[in-house]
Amino acid sequence: MNDPRLNELFEFVSIPSVSAQAVHAGDMRRCADWLLAKLSQIGLEARLEPTPGHPVVLGKSPRDPSKKTVLIYGHYDVQPPEPLELWTSPPFVPEIRDGRVFGRGASDNKGQILAHILGVAEALKEGPLPVNVIFLIEGEEEIGSAHLAEFLEKNRAELSCDAIAISDTGMAADGYPTLSYALRGIATMEVRVFGPAQDLHSGIYGGAVANPVTAAARLIASLHDSSGRVAIEGFYGEVKPMAAWERQAAAESPLSDAAIAAQAGVAELAGEAGYSAVEQIGARPTAEINGIGGGYQGEGSKTVLPAQAFFKISFRLVPDQRPDAIIALARRHFEEHCPPGVRLEFIDGHGGEPFAIDPSAPAGQAAQRALQQVFGKKPALTREGGSIPILSDFLKILGQPALLLALASPDCRAHAPDESFPVENFLAGIRLNKALLQELARTLGD
Amino acid sequence: MNDPRLNELFEFVSIPSVSAQAVHAGDMRRCADWLLAKLSQIGLEARLEPTPGHPVVLGKSPRDPSKKTVLIYGHYDVQPPEPLELWTSPPFVPEIRDGRVFGRGASDNKGQILAHILGVAEALKEGPLPVNVIFLIEGEEEIGSAHLAEFLEKNRAELSCDAIAISDTGMAADGYPTLSYALRGIATMEVRVFGPAQDLHSGIYGGAVANPVTAAARLIASLHDSSGRVAIEGFYGEVKPMAAWERQAAAESPLSDAAIAAQAGVAELAGEAGYSAVEQIGARPTAEINGIGGGYQGEGSKTVLPAQAFFKISFRLVPDQRPDAIIALARRHFEEHCPPGVRLEFIDGHGGEPFAIDPSAPAGQAAQRALQQVFGKKPALTREGGSIPILSDFLKILGQPALLLALASPDCRAHAPDESFPVENFLAGIRLNKALLQELARTLGD
Repeated sequence: MNDPRLNELFEFVSIPSVSAQAVHAGDMRRCADWLLAKLSQIGLEARLEPTPGHPVVLGKSPRDPSKKTVLIYGHYDVQPPEPLELWTSPPFVPEIRDGRVFGRGASDNKGQILAHILGVAEALKEGPLPVNVIFLIEGEEEIGSAHLAEFLEKNRAELSCDAIAISDTGMAADGYPTLSYALRGIATMEVRVFGPAQDLHSGIYGGAVANPVTAAARLIASLHDSSGRVAIEGFYGEVKPMAAWERQAAAESPLSDAAIAAQAGVAELAGEAGYSAVEQIGARPTAEINGIGGGYQGEGSKTVLPAQAFFKISFRLVPDQRPDAIIALARRHFEEHCPPGVRLEFIDGHGGEPFAIDPSAPAGQAAQRALQQVFGKKPALTREGGSIPILSDFLKILGQPALLLALASPDCRAHAPDESFPVENFLAGIRLNKALLQELARTLGD
Repeated sequence: MNDPRLNELFEFVSIPSVSAQAVHAGDMRRCADWLLAKLSQIGLEARLEPTPGHPVVLGKSPRDPSKKTVLIYGHYDVQPPEPLELWTSPPFVPEIRDGRVFGRGASDNKGQILAHILGVAEALKEGPLPVNVIFLIEGEEEIGSAHLAEFLEKNRAELSCDAIAISDTGMAADGYPTLSYALRGIATMEVRVFGPAQDLHSGIYGGAVANPVTAAARLIASLHDSSGRVAIEGFYGEVKPMAAWERQAAAESPLSDAAIAAQAGVAELAGEAGYSAVEQIGARPTAEINGIGGGYQGEGSKTVLPAQAFFKISFRLVPDQRPDAIIALARRHFEEHCPPGVRLEFIDGHGGEPFAIDPSAPAGQAAQRALQQVFGKKPALTREGGSIPILSDFLKILGQPALLLALASPDCRAHAPDESFPVENFLAGIRLNKALLQELARTLGD
C-alpha cells in the first residue's frame, strides 16, 4: 500500500458504481467524475458525454495526424455485490490479502482499465505518446451497453482509430500472457409448452392426456445426439472449421481439462466428442438449457398433470453462425419434434454475433509482442466461450477489430463475491499498456 | 327447497369442515357433532371416536346376528375452498342453481354420504332394516386418512361386516349408473440431478460441463417409447392383462374419447397405442411428471449453466403392480440412463396399492341390480384412474372389498371452485341405498 498507484485503484474500487441499481445513480455519476478528473490530471482532454443512461467518459491525447490512433475501451460500472454475506471483506472497502486487491470491480473492470490509464500517464511523463490515444470508458457494460452503439455512430469521426485495445477478459492461466482472438456469439429463446386448459388430476386424466413437462423434456432431449453434437438440422452449416494453427494453439493452452473440471466443481467433463474442453468451450457452438419449470415445485408431491411447462435456452455461436438464423432453425426443429397433444409458443431473446480476429494480422502481432515483452513468455492465443456483443459494434461502426489483452486471473471471481485482482497483474498491466502502444506505433506505422 | 331432505344437505354443506386448515378445527368438531345428532335422530347407536387427528363418527343399527352386516363409509371433511374469487356463490352458503346444489363438499362427500344416511332413515321408518348397518364417517379423507387404518385395526371386531359400500366416485356420464370395480394405485418419487458445485456462466463453461437440466430432460424422455408405453424394464411384468369382459365394458363406456378431451381442455388426446382413453386412464399404468424445476425461471434470460435440477414423478399402478417394486425399477432405470457428468439422488414419496374387485361376485351383482333398479339402465362397469389407498386397508383389515357406487356427476368439480351435486343424484342416492341394502340382504343371505 505504499505504491500510490494502488491508492488510486483503492479510490476507484471504493465507489459503488452499480449500474443496475437505481439507488447507486449518484455513485455512478461520482465514479464518472472521478475518472474525468483522473484523465484530465494525467494530461488528456477529457469530458463526460451524456447518454439516455449513464454517461460515457472520454479522454483523448491531442490528435497528431502523423501518428496512428489507438482506442482503449473499458467500463466503470460494476455488477451488484449481492449476496453480501458471502464476502470476506465488504465489497466497496478494498483490501489487500495474499497479494490481491479484493473488492467489487477490482478485476472487472476497474483494475484493468486503470492499468491502461496509468500506463498512459507514465508514458506521458516520459515524453510524447507514440500513438494518439482515446479512452472510451462506459457506465453500462454490466447492463447490456444499451447506448454504446448509438454513441459510436454519433461520434464515429471523433472515434476513428487504427486499433482498439480492451482488457476485460481472463488469462488462460494465472500470470499467463493471453491474447483472446475470438469470442462466441449468443442467441436466446424461451419455449413454452401448453397442454390442458388447467392443471389436471393425474389419476383422472393421466395416460390419455399429453403431459407438457414430458413434452418439454423430449424437445430438450432432441437437441443433442449421442456424441454431444447439437442435433438441430443445419446448425453447423455456417461453422468455420478450426484452422490447424487454432487446434495447435488450443493444444498448447495452459488450461487443462482437469483444471476446467476443478474450476466448475464437477467430477468429470462431458461435451462434444472429438474436441478438448478448451475447444468445446471456445470454438464449438452449444445449445444450453438455462432454466426449466412446470407443474408442482413445492415440498412433497402433488399429483397433477401440469397445464404447461417452459424452458429457456441459449445457443453460443461461433463464426459464421448468425443469431437470427440459428433461432429460425431452432424454432423449426422444435415444431418438427413437438409431440402430439401439446402446443408450442416461442419467445425470442437477445442475440449477439460471434467475433474473431486474425491474430497474425499486424495489430495482432504487435499485441503478441507486447505480451511477450511484459510477461516473458509466448502468449496463449485463446478463444473465449463468453460473448461481448459490443465487439461487433466496434467492428461495424469503427471498422476495427478489438485486441483483447487479458489481465484478469482465471480465479478473479468476476460477478461473484470476493472478486479480486492480483497486484502483480495490475502492475503488469501498466507495463503492458506502454509496450502495446510502442509496438502498435511501430507495426501500424509501417 | 321445500324438500326437508335438501334442508338437511344445506345444513351439512354450510359447516366449513376443512380438515387441512387449523382455523377450521372448531368447525370440524361441529360437523362431527352434527352427524352424531343426525345418526342418533334416525335411530342408530351413534358415537364419536377420537383419533390423534379429527374424530371418526360411528352409527350402527343394533346388530341382529341373523342378518348380514353392511359397512357404509364416507367422510365429512372437505377440501379447502380456495381460490374463493372463482366461486359464483360462497362455498359454505349452499345454493341451488340449474337443479344442482352448489357448495364445497356438496358432492365430495357430504351429498353422497347423506343420501345413504337418509336412505337408511327412510327404511327404518318403514320397518326393520334388511341388514345390519354400520356408518363409518371419517374426518381426514382429504388429508390422507392418516389414522383410519389404525382405527380399523383397533375396532376390527366391532366393524366386522359382509360388504362395504362407498359413494365417493364419479359416474361414467351424467345420470349414468356406475359401479367402479377398480382403481389405480400410486407410487411417487422425486429425482434430483446434480451437476457443477454452483450455477456456472454458460459462456465460460458451456460445451464442456454437463447440464443437469438437459440430463433431467433425457431421463424423462427415456421413460416412454414411441408407442406411449413406459420404457422402464420390467414395468409391465406384474400387470394383469384386461379380461375380455373388461375390454367389452370399456368399449360400452358412455364416456367417449372426445368427451374426455373436452373435459381436459385439449385439442387431441395422446396415450399408449392400442387402448382407448377410458382404458388408458383406468386400466393402464402411467409414468407422469408432476413437476420440474431447475436454473433460472424468472423473466427474460439469464445465461447460467444450472447447478441442479429436479423432477417429481408419480406412477399410477394397476393390479398386480406394487408401489415399492415399481420405485425400485424406476431407480434402476434412472441410474442406468443417467448421462455422464451428473449425479442423481432419489426421494421416495407415498405409495398406494392398486385395487380391484370382481363385479360378478355376489356383492358386485347385488350392487349392479340395485343400480339398474334405481337408474333404469344397465350400469357401466368402470375402472377409475385415481387412487383411494384406504380401499386396501379395508380389504386387508376387514377382509372385504368395497363396492364403489358412484353418485357424483362427471362435471361435479370436486376439489375445485363451484363444486356442485345434482339434486336428482341426491334423491337417486337415497333410493339407491334402500335398493342396495335389500339386494345385499337377498344375495349375501343365500
